[in-house]
Amino acid sequence: MDFDTISAISTPMGEGAIAIVRLSGDEAVQIADRIFKSPSNKKLVEQPSHTIHYGHLVETKTGEVVEEVMVSLMRGPKTFTREDVVEINCHGGIVSVNRVLQLVLTNGARLAEPGEFTKRAFLNGRIDLSQAEAVMDLIRAKSDRAMNVALGQMEGKLSKLISSLRQALLETLAQVEVNIDYPEYDDVEEMTQSTIIEKGQWVKSEIERLLQTSSQGKILREGLSTVIIGRPNVGKSSLLNSLVHENKAIVTDIAGTTRDIIEEYVNVRGVPLRLVDTAGIRETEDIVERIGVERSRQVLKEADLILLLLNYSEELSPEDERLFEAIEGMDTIVVINKTDLPNKLNMERVRELSAGKKLVTTSLLKEEGVDSLEEAIAELFFEGSIESADLTYVSNARHIALLHQAKNSIEDAIEAAESGVPIDMVQIDVTRTWEILGEIIGDTVQESLINQLFSQFCLGK
Amino acid sequence: MDFDTISAISTPMGEGAIAIVRLSGDEAVQIADRIFKSPSNKKLVEQPSHTIHYGHLVETKTGEVVEEVMVSLMRGPKTFTREDVVEINCHGGIVSVNRVLQLVLTNGARLAEPGEFTKRAFLNGRIDLSQAEAVMDLIRAKSDRAMNVALGQMEGKLSKLISSLRQALLETLAQVEVNIDYPEYDDVEEMTQSTIIEKGQWVKSEIERLLQTSSQGKILREGLSTVIIGRPNVGKSSLLNSLVHENKAIVTDIAGTTRDIIEEYVNVRGVPLRLVDTAGIRETEDIVERIGVERSRQVLKEADLILLLLNYSEELSPEDERLFEAIEGMDTIVVINKTDLPNKLNMERVRELSAGKKLVTTSLLKEEGVDSLEEAIAELFFEGSIESADLTYVSNARHIALLHQAKNSIEDAIEAAESGVPIDMVQIDVTRTWEILGEIIGDTVQESLINQLFSQFCLGK
Repeated sequence: MDFDTISAISTPMGEGAIAIVRLSGDEAVQIADRIFKSPSNKKLVEQPSHTIHYGHLVETKTGEVVEEVMVSLMRGPKTFTREDVVEINCHGGIVSVNRVLQLVLTNGARLAEPGEFTKRAFLNGRIDLSQAEAVMDLIRAKSDRAMNVALGQMEGKLSKLISSLRQALLETLAQVEVNIDYPEYDDVEEMTQSTIIEKGQWVKSEIERLLQTSSQGKILREGLSTVIIGRPNVGKSSLLNSLVHENKAIVTDIAGTTRDIIEEYVNVRGVPLRLVDTAGIRETEDIVERIGVERSRQVLKEADLILLLLNYSEELSPEDERLFEAIEGMDTIVVINKTDLPNKLNMERVRELSAGKKLVTTSLLKEEGVDSLEEAIAELFFEGSIESADLTYVSNARHIALLHQAKNSIEDAIEAAESGVPIDMVQIDVTRTWEILGEIIGDTVQESLINQLFSQFCLGK
Repeated sequence: MDFDTISAISTPMGEGAIAIVRLSGDEAVQIADRIFKSPSNKKLVEQPSHTIHYGHLVETKTGEVVEEVMVSLMRGPKTFTREDVVEINCHGGIVSVNRVLQLVLTNGARLAEPGEFTKRAFLNGRIDLSQAEAVMDLIRAKSDRAMNVALGQMEGKLSKLISSLRQALLETLAQVEVNIDYPEYDDVEEMTQSTIIEKGQWVKSEIERLLQTSSQGKILREGLSTVIIGRPNVGKSSLLNSLVHENKAIVTDIAGTTRDIIEEYVNVRGVPLRLVDTAGIRETEDIVERIGVERSRQVLKEADLILLLLNYSEELSPEDERLFEAIEGMDTIVVINKTDLPNKLNMERVRELSAGKKLVTTSLLKEEGVDSLEEAIAELFFEGSIESADLTYVSNARHIALLHQAKNSIEDAIEAAESGVPIDMVQIDVTRTWEILGEIIGDTVQESLINQLFSQFCLGK
């Protein structure tokens, strides 16, 4: 395909040692040559592919030095986009990198839209749609496991599985056509139906297997929205700090995200917890007090996991009982804190209220019990099954929705075949299933969807 | 020199398309080879310098794929550190890049200290100390001009100037030695004195010239701390928004900086304004009300520029008069806003109170007058002189302090020479000046200072 040359800053914004401005397109090398001056006056266009060159960027008109750079030259098709790619490594300041981008843009490149580099990799046939989406998942991964899932998907694991299902459907359709065209036997109708039912059942079970991974996949991808509740002084901020400090915390209010809502990601034994309203907890020790009753109910409702703290050294209060009511039916771990103090809490009553929920005891002051809590979290959500690196996870909401559609569609086909609906009607459902699955890998997908998908990418990818 | 191999993440933390993990040292290529697997199984150690290679990083023990990467191979001495350098370009997520770093560290590299790459460039003699410091200034530059200053310094402009002054002092000392050793003439004492006085005066005037640039240099480097004050509803937040929206704003609360104090950098005609307490202004429309009288006096005291807003359509209030008192003797631009409404403000009295200060009128509602304000800001601080790209600016506090010391020292020498102090005593002062100037470029500098200096760098540089 033939595209204009695009450019964008491909490293995160901020102060760092190195930043990269990337160019991709037919003119990439020529544009770089216009502004690049090496000490030996060599031209990039004469250099071999996949080589690195030191020099300066200069204003074409004034000859003024704009930056000291290293230029990486990569000719297509062995590049990320399959086009000619030039990466300009400059000093990592905000002004510096913007200046380099400006210079590139005034010398013939167009500012890339978000995701446009990856879109070109897709349009040029280097990767399919599910692989392209995995690129973004990989960048946004909040834990090792999430990254493994994305990496697997990027390498084509999901694509292969989907392709094999589509292949099976296509073969079934071909078989049906043959049967219809050459009705040499009496039982052709019956045979065709049984083929569709058999293959359909297999495809359906494979889709169901994939969908079963989706809730875990979603947790891996987006993190487990976690809320810590409990009366004042029960130790909420201590628990928060223990979780954050004993694990790698990833604060997400980096440049560009909203300032008001502060979330922290903590990786607890492979489960990425998204700790909600940590600022609130840290500041006032009481989420309910701070954000108001109505909004806290909302926060609770949206949470995937509640950590309910009780005080081992105080009697159960009406407030505690109300908290138990508020979390009715939700995934909750009851944490009984302050076991270093004499017991006043009615444990029997607590066990009664916690029926069916996990219960752990801690003394955050003495740094005891956090291990058991982390174990409980990991057990609650993964029960060990996620350890297998070979599983293909579906985590993308678009994929999940399409898989549900495909499942419904193949169920329709099976049901129709079973109830003796004419074969050409059944064929429509099978074909529809094939098309829906194709949308996951981008085989049967519309341009508007493609544009919308890639616009969710970050700039420079 | 012989160093171990260091590694660090060299791009800003955050979600971006590409991140870089950099290695430098004798083992850099070997370490990369241990974990890098190319599709054709080639070894990096056998590849030519300054080439780029596609492949995967794998766990050495399990063979598990960790990331898809591009590896840049650069052999010393033509590298940033003069050592062998390997740059691993991976996907720009937080998990992804940390994982690559972990892998590198478990395979023989040591985590670099902040600034250690640049420190090696210095210790290996590629750049001097003032050039190394300019690297950091360049990354932190908040405006084009600040970047030009840093770029000039990085390319050695300041170093050359300092070296020429030191050369002059050295020649003077040599001349003095010759005169003392061969006292063939009667007037040797006198001649020696006049040489020292003459050369000393020249060095002193050059140092003074440099010091004159320092206040502008400091503004370029750190931004002009700017406070907007005025009574409620006079238009403070409108002014703030105009300045921010009509210019490129650089919000600085990126990862790692304090959340409480929000500052915004705005580049106004090359003058970087550091707008203080913008959150306060946006929220309550009144800085004094929000942060308390005592603290606002402190804020005012530390400001480089005050923008005092008055209401054109209301009479001057006692509060306005008190504000004029509070900013006595400070760099202030008086902004008379709301000129779209009928005049009630006593302009004569305002002119009286504003004596010696710049005065502009605006209607922020009608978007009028912001241009004149910006012009006033630029005039107030640069008077056009900064346009000359050739000027060498001193902006670094360490350099400024050393230049002041050097100036005192050479003044002592001149005074001593003038008052007929024995020549060997004068020599001591001249030598001391030579040494002090040497500290700027790192020629006569102690190891402890070097360590302290580089520790202020960001990681990965």
